Amino acid sequence: MYKVDLNSDLGESFGNYTIGMDADVIAHISSANVACGYHAGDPLVMDKTVQAAKTAGVAVGAHPGYPDLMGFGRRNVACSPKEAKAYVKYQLGALMAFTKANGVKLQHCKPHGALYNMAGKDIDLALAIAEAVAEVDKDVIFLALANSKMVEAAKQVGIRVASEVFADRAYQADGSLVPRSKPGAVIHDTEEAITRTIRMVKEGKVTAITGEEVPLAADSICVHGDNPSAVEFVKNIRARLEAEGVTIAPIAEIV
Amino acid sequence: MYKVDLNSDLGESFGNYTIGMDADVIAHISSANVACGYHAGDPLVMDKTVQAAKTAGVAVGAHPGYPDLMGFGRRNVACSPKEAKAYVKYQLGALMAFTKANGVKLQHCKPHGALYNMAGKDIDLALAIAEAVAEVDKDVIFLALANSKMVEAAKQVGIRVASEVFADRAYQADGSLVPRSKPGAVIHDTEEAITRTIRMVKEGKVTAITGEEVPLAADSICVHGDNPSAVEFVKNIRARLEAEGVTIAPIAEIV
Amino acid sequence: MYKVDLNSDLGESFGNYTIGMDADVIAHISSANVACGYHAGDPLVMDKTVQAAKTAGVAVGAHPGYPDLMGFGRRNVACSPKEAKAYVKYQLGALMAFTKANGVKLQHCKPHGALYNMAGKDIDLALAIAEAVAEVDKDVIFLALANSKMVEAAKQVGIRVASEVFADRAYQADGSLVPRSKPGAVIHDTEEAITRTIRMVKEGKVTAITGEEVPLAADSICVHGDNPSAVEFVKNIRARLEAEGVTIAPIAEIV
Amino acid sequence: MYKVDLNSDLGESFGNYTIGMDADVIAHISSANVACGYHAGDPLVMDKTVQAAKTAGVAVGAHPGYPDLMGFGRRNVACSPKEAKAYVKYQLGALMAFTKANGVKLQHCKPHGALYNMAGKDIDLALAIAEAVAEVDKDVIFLALANSKMVEAAKQVGIRVASEVFADRAYQADGSLVPRSKPGAVIHDTEEAITRTIRMVKEGKVTAITGEEVPLAADSICVHGDNPSAVEFVKNIRARLEAEGVTIAPIAEIV
Repeated sequence: MYKVDLNSDLGESFGNYTIGMDADVIAHISSANVACGYHAGDPLVMDKTVQAAKTAGVAVGAHPGYPDLMGFGRRNVACSPKEAKAYVKYQLGALMAFTKANGVKLQHCKPHGALYNMAGKDIDLALAIAEAVAEVDKDVIFLALANSKMVEAAKQVGIRVASEVFADRAYQADGSLVPRSKPGAVIHDTEEAITRTIRMVKEGKVTAITGEEVPLAADSICVHGDNPSAVEFVKNIRARLEAEGVTIAPIAEIV
Repeated sequence: MYKVDLNSDLGESFGNYTIGMDADVIAHISSANVACGYHAGDPLVMDKTVQAAKTAGVAVGAHPGYPDLMGFGRRNVACSPKEAKAYVKYQLGALMAFTKANGVKLQHCKPHGALYNMAGKDIDLALAIAEAVAEVDKDVIFLALANSKMVEAAKQVGIRVASEVFADRAYQADGSLVPRSKPGAVIHDTEEAITRTIRMVKEGKVTAITGEEVPLAADSICVHGDNPSAVEFVKNIRARLEAEGVTIAPIAEIV
Repeated sequence: MYKVDLNSDLGESFGNYTIGMDADVIAHISSANVACGYHAGDPLVMDKTVQAAKTAGVAVGAHPGYPDLMGFGRRNVACSPKEAKAYVKYQLGALMAFTKANGVKLQHCKPHGALYNMAGKDIDLALAIAEAVAEVDKDVIFLALANSKMVEAAKQVGIRVASEVFADRAYQADGSLVPRSKPGAVIHDTEEAITRTIRMVKEGKVTAITGEEVPLAADSICVHGDNPSAVEFVKNIRARLEAEGVTIAPIAEIV
Repeated sequence: MYKVDLNSDLGESFGNYTIGMDADVIAHISSANVACGYHAGDPLVMDKTVQAAKTAGVAVGAHPGYPDLMGFGRRNVACSPKEAKAYVKYQLGALMAFTKANGVKLQHCKPHGALYNMAGKDIDLALAIAEAVAEVDKDVIFLALANSKMVEAAKQVGIRVASEVFADRAYQADGSLVPRSKPGAVIHDTEEAITRTIRMVKEGKVTAITGEEVPLAADSICVHGDNPSAVEFVKNIRARLEAEGVTIAPIAEIV
């Protein structure tokens, strides 16, 4: 029987600023990555988001980022692994206050934006994040880019890891994503994106942009809720996966 | 047998900025109030401070403040009780990441600066803080100004509370502190300060500025480590208390 | 011949967060209050907003607030007049970099949110703001709540001041606004709001909630662009004012 | 007749945090680089620092950095040239509010920390900074690392530039600094540092770490005031330069 998780970034609003269609997308996902106040989110938003996830039966994960609200965590901040480790701990703990208060277990930790991208390539940074998770709560799952240094780091540190795949991104022969700067990096055809995703989930394989068959663990699919067509895509891919006999379940039930 | 706690604010450094003689004062206190990143402190400082407290055998508490680094948490930020509650949860959780990672139990929570002063007079704000503590970890002790609304709030919410007294401050007949703006608010004579403190601890009484005898629970004495003479005072008062047969112990052993 | 200014808060977006229908409302106003990075706005937004105002022929003013992005400048931060003065200078200067770079003159300064509300009642705070303006550029006009301490402060310091009125707010017999917490504070009937505003502009009078006729300088009307109906109201009130022979002009042409 | 400027970073304190021996070093320098609130400094500190520079007869420059108070501006924040340009404008303007209020002319702009290091190697970033300066005030001098991309950018944009040299750093044959990670990067012998500096100022030459004679414009020497021995070195080098017939003067009198 096939199972996969659908994860989405939630709780990215801040103060008077509202962003994301959280209330719409939450009905269709199984895991929520909740911003922790460094690149997005604030304590009231975190509390509200954890409550909404609980109500919707969606698992809660931390989504720590660089301390860069102005850049929404999308710019690399050249901090040391030691700094990154402390920043991840801080944000994990901050979110755990709200999961504890709401009687919810913190399921996973998925780094955000530039921290995710950097940690996918940099084993020292990936280890720093994995160690932060392990030291704060060794039951928290590292949600990481499939085939990346983050997966390696989680294994090295001895915590559970879930591999994340992207429905709309092309892959290279080594299993890494084709960089967005390269032609063909993004798959714009919805049907093709869905077909590829179903194959990743059911066969554990994807065809690289250069034609090779690439093995790929697909524990979780990254989806978005920042605009109406993104939410539509989530509904769509969920329905198609279920029609193919794939159960949507939080990663704690998968890895 | 008499027991009292000596508490001091630690971990108020931030990034490249160092403040406080933490390494000196930590040897003489029994509880540390650790800044949590809103008014002071950063993740590296928090980690280091928790480690130092553990090494010194000093109990660790959270010291949450208003989100006002520029004002060091000393200015009232007119936020709602709901906002304050979420801010306290966030900071408590953030610090708990470091206590968990260091294998230390979070003993208490003492609000900082303007948040402490406001919550001492405002029952709604005091309740918001007490509820935040109770919802995140009901075993955490509320370290609160003796005879204040914070003590009342902790009792109402049903969490343990420790009453804090000040060696160098004058009291009013109702058990509240003489405001700093009034003459005689601060006791400058070290000997008098120590004598008064010993009496508060051993007899549970202090003489008000207007002459009345005021009953006062003295579970913890607030001391400072921001300059050499403050550290000297801590050594001094500790030695005198011990000479009087008073044991210095963390509040978890007292309340 | 009658003249009045229509002012609106613009440039309140921040980083990845977009707020306000700036592009829609700018066509209908004569003065823009541009956020300066403390409670809202960032350098890219400030630059873009000054450019948009220049293109639309709208005068540019600074909209300094308390350093409280999380609270959008709407919460009082109990800072000293000296601190407030320095914060206003900082924000004024920061915006002037963009007005200079775009070849635009900074017309006015209107405090934002809690700073505006506090300064309307507190002469020391109002003087601090007026002095900040005078010391940075004595040609900048203080856009201030009619009949408030800000008007008094501007006169005392010797800078030009423009009195601001609100179309949808009730007034008290002393010329101050009925606090939002009181019944009747907000006028929900659009027609009534417009009629009252036309009278304020043409006769310099408004009927207080208690029935008295109150004299009121109406140099500028505060309008909003945060939602479609607000923008609709701006179009509406502008058309009605013009139909009554009132010219819409920036405050520099009025005071 | 020989002239050189001595510049030092000042005004890096923030809120309750004090850093740097500003009052000591200011007596011995000719130009002050004043932090502008992004990596260090706050409005009160900026005001006080501009006043102190004015009193000491020291020229004032802006010292803009990345928006990273926690990292003191020493970590690269991967922002675009467009973002960097807006950030520099913002900070330049903010400081100009205080120079205008104090009746002082803003002499120069020297990027801080990581922004300085990156702009020395990246022509797009260097051009962004030079354009920001030119658009805000074309009379402001770009204080830049000798032989770097910043010097090239200033010339390309058409603003005045002053070349900065380091007394205690080794140079490579191409005129760039030996990276701190390489052996021999820092010259620890005070006498050697002073002798080399005098030669840079009087002959416009320095001996590279590999033995070559390298031509070098030495308009300004970077000195520090962060500890007593640094201040001692400033006194020392100033006395030795003057004994060699070199006049210490702000860069506006040199370039």
